[in-house]
Amino acid sequence: MNRKMVFYTIGRILLLEGAVLALPLAVSVYYWDGGQLPLLLTIALSLGLGLLFIKVFRPDSQVIYAREGFLITALAWVIVSALGALPFVLSGEIPCFVDAFFETVSGFTTTGASILTDVEVMSRSMLFWRSFTHWIGGMGVLVLMVAVMPNLSGRTIHILRAEMPGPTMGKLSPKLGDTAKLLYLLYIALTVLEFLLLVAGGMPLFDSAVHTFGTAGTGGFGIKADSLAGYSPYLQWVIAVFMMLFGINFNLFFLLIMRRFRAAFRSEELWTYVGIVLVATGLICWNIRPLFPSFSESLRHAFFQVTTISSTTGYSTANFDTWPTLSRMLLVLLMFIGACAGSTAGGLKVSRLVLLFKTFRREIRHLLHPRAVTSVRFEGRPVDSSTLISVSTYFAIYVGLFVAFWFLLSFQPGFDGVSNFTAVAACYNNIGPGLNLVGPAASYAGYSPVCKVLLSFAMLFGRLEIYPMLISLSPGIWRKN
Amino acid sequence: MNRKMVFYTIGRILLLEGAVLALPLAVSVYYWDGGQLPLLLTIALSLGLGLLFIKVFRPDSQVIYAREGFLITALAWVIVSALGALPFVLSGEIPCFVDAFFETVSGFTTTGASILTDVEVMSRSMLFWRSFTHWIGGMGVLVLMVAVMPNLSGRTIHILRAEMPGPTMGKLSPKLGDTAKLLYLLYIALTVLEFLLLVAGGMPLFDSAVHTFGTAGTGGFGIKADSLAGYSPYLQWVIAVFMMLFGINFNLFFLLIMRRFRAAFRSEELWTYVGIVLVATGLICWNIRPLFPSFSESLRHAFFQVTTISSTTGYSTANFDTWPTLSRMLLVLLMFIGACAGSTAGGLKVSRLVLLFKTFRREIRHLLHPRAVTSVRFEGRPVDSSTLISVSTYFAIYVGLFVAFWFLLSFQPGFDGVSNFTAVAACYNNIGPGLNLVGPAASYAGYSPVCKVLLSFAMLFGRLEIYPMLISLSPGIWRKN
Repeated sequence: MNRKMVFYTIGRILLLEGAVLALPLAVSVYYWDGGQLPLLLTIALSLGLGLLFIKVFRPDSQVIYAREGFLITALAWVIVSALGALPFVLSGEIPCFVDAFFETVSGFTTTGASILTDVEVMSRSMLFWRSFTHWIGGMGVLVLMVAVMPNLSGRTIHILRAEMPGPTMGKLSPKLGDTAKLLYLLYIALTVLEFLLLVAGGMPLFDSAVHTFGTAGTGGFGIKADSLAGYSPYLQWVIAVFMMLFGINFNLFFLLIMRRFRAAFRSEELWTYVGIVLVATGLICWNIRPLFPSFSESLRHAFFQVTTISSTTGYSTANFDTWPTLSRMLLVLLMFIGACAGSTAGGLKVSRLVLLFKTFRREIRHLLHPRAVTSVRFEGRPVDSSTLISVSTYFAIYVGLFVAFWFLLSFQPGFDGVSNFTAVAACYNNIGPGLNLVGPAASYAGYSPVCKVLLSFAMLFGRLEIYPMLISLSPGIWRKN
Repeated sequence: MNRKMVFYTIGRILLLEGAVLALPLAVSVYYWDGGQLPLLLTIALSLGLGLLFIKVFRPDSQVIYAREGFLITALAWVIVSALGALPFVLSGEIPCFVDAFFETVSGFTTTGASILTDVEVMSRSMLFWRSFTHWIGGMGVLVLMVAVMPNLSGRTIHILRAEMPGPTMGKLSPKLGDTAKLLYLLYIALTVLEFLLLVAGGMPLFDSAVHTFGTAGTGGFGIKADSLAGYSPYLQWVIAVFMMLFGINFNLFFLLIMRRFRAAFRSEELWTYVGIVLVATGLICWNIRPLFPSFSESLRHAFFQVTTISSTTGYSTANFDTWPTLSRMLLVLLMFIGACAGSTAGGLKVSRLVLLFKTFRREIRHLLHPRAVTSVRFEGRPVDSSTLISVSTYFAIYVGLFVAFWFLLSFQPGFDGVSNFTAVAACYNNIGPGLNLVGPAASYAGYSPVCKVLLSFAMLFGRLEIYPMLISLSPGIWRKN
């Protein structure tokens, strides 16, 4: 273990967090809403700690391996969240640190689960910071570092691989720094486009910025008690479509820009994702039709809730907790599926499900014809056996950890099984609202501090796809090699 | 596909069913309760059809492969259940065929889920037949055929493998017929022992027989509205202990008889199973302590409900649907785990979970040390990679099918998510009662006929461990090879 390099990299990330906090500070100065001092203090602390780390832990060797990559990623996300929670505590708007930590982890992991019982009393700058964490966390804290800072070493791939969602990592450019830059440029372009479309539809500037951040990162923090229910149908449609877009693998957007339309539209994962969204929308639209006066309204609510859950964003235009069993069941199912790999969304990812299904077909064929050689192809390329094993194993661990979190949460008295089940599902898959006591009209405020920490870790496990967190918690990790 | 051989074997199984029905007929004659004619008619039909099949489909070649094995198993279970449902219909005690089919599938698959709203009005002979199906289905219809009939061919292993639960099949003797005979002898010995202990505790003879069948097959059909709540603590303890015993791999009992104690007590699966039962009992006992006047009572109810669910039997001494969230959650979890491979229990099986956990540990090690060669050992022997892939794949298919059944069941109006979820969990894992509307104090009567057929198939998928049913439903299966 190259310990120095681990903390040196953390130091650089802290510098970055200090820089990033300048934006909410600017908002705070503009509205003069009292967030200036808390934000300034946090910036000072971030920069100070960052410089200290870089000074103290200047590494003898920049070489890192998979272990270091996992550890850097896990530590970075925990530390960045802990520091990012300080403005809420210092401003007194979320006085308890555990609550503020939950809220910030929920922000960075793009979950959108909130312990706030009344979001509308928060100051502008805190609301802005809260939503901005979505935007940063969506594409990744470490991807950002690689994009804006001079290359650390040729081994940066171990960091990116640990942070990027999906069974395999796509490279847009042979140079990793360029890949990271390209991803962020695409991300910024889509963000600006959505912002303009929202402003054009009459949404106030501040609201547009906050909701664009929430959509781009597939986070879901809003600024109204009823989430997006109060905005016009046009604005709801725009956000629904963009939630769906941000659930698509960014490599496909890149292919579109490069005018490689055939390659982009041949993606199996894309069409499976679109198919899932359309089928779920159709079923729910039919199921909730009696609840709404017109077909178009029930279609809009169905499509919005399907895209918000399947992209793991978590906004809502209706309290789906009051919908019939079939619709609620479908939404819970979509929580686990998630969207495409290489997007800002959470969940299992559609590509993993496709690969699981193909592995399963191969197993059936193998049972019937034990001597036949069968290969699995995905996105036009053959998939090797070790990737298939990894995907099956990931699925098993994913389910196992889900059950473990659910089990631990069950010790909290006063919460029913459905609330606990969907609370873990919503945090672990980075969605936000669940059902019953954690439904879209409720909050996570009722859980004990221990449960909040537990759910915060569920969010981190989900966002980082389990391994970085799990490996960092394993006993031998700090040993020198 | 050797079609003739498939139907020829089915013919033999029908003869066997006719023979087996003689026992409830004897009960019916003894009590003279009106079940004689329905049972006689069913026996005649079974024997007649069986002889017809054997005559018409006399095979040119007795050679069968895996495909035939799966198909024979799936067809045998469906046909045996359909015929076994006739006495209920003909006697008018369960007039609707779908209901009777559900009840009989529930019997043979050792599920114990019932559509009866009042079990106490049923005649003695029908109650006896209902519980006797548990006993036959527990060890297996085809195992019974192999045990009592002259060997079909050297390929019988394809049939046994398709019917026997667990990731691998243990052979007690080099000759399969002998293995099947030994298994049934052990099964009969344990059954007689439990019967004697129940009679010694003052349970009436008829009740003892019925409950012994239900325990041995890990089925759970009872004869009282409150299941076993009305019997003495001694009787409840006896049944609880035997439920646990029948959840243990029968190979271990064989090793004990052969005085190979060390080999028997070295079993990883055994100790994991015992550990799960003890930890769950402890937690639930603590959790439900305030509900009962004394510690011993809360311990008894906790242990009974844990063994009944983890052995997938489904008797109850208390309405656990009214217990706190943690206990209910634990019981739901135990539903999926099930007991040991090679027992009469359902669920995923403990050995699969142990293997999944080991696969997962190997994956972590592989991530940290990509070039290190790591092997997995289970029960003292190395496990090859293809078994590990099979186990992971099985887990993924198992979860996928569970979700599919749950999804389809959600179309039934009037049932909440928890009822549907636990209804599928209880049928698919061959337990019986679930929670809420299908709790221990309720029944499956409220579901529509379509849902009942669906749940019947969930039971068959669960009992036969998915592949036989799935492969029989695949389009190309009947093609000549």
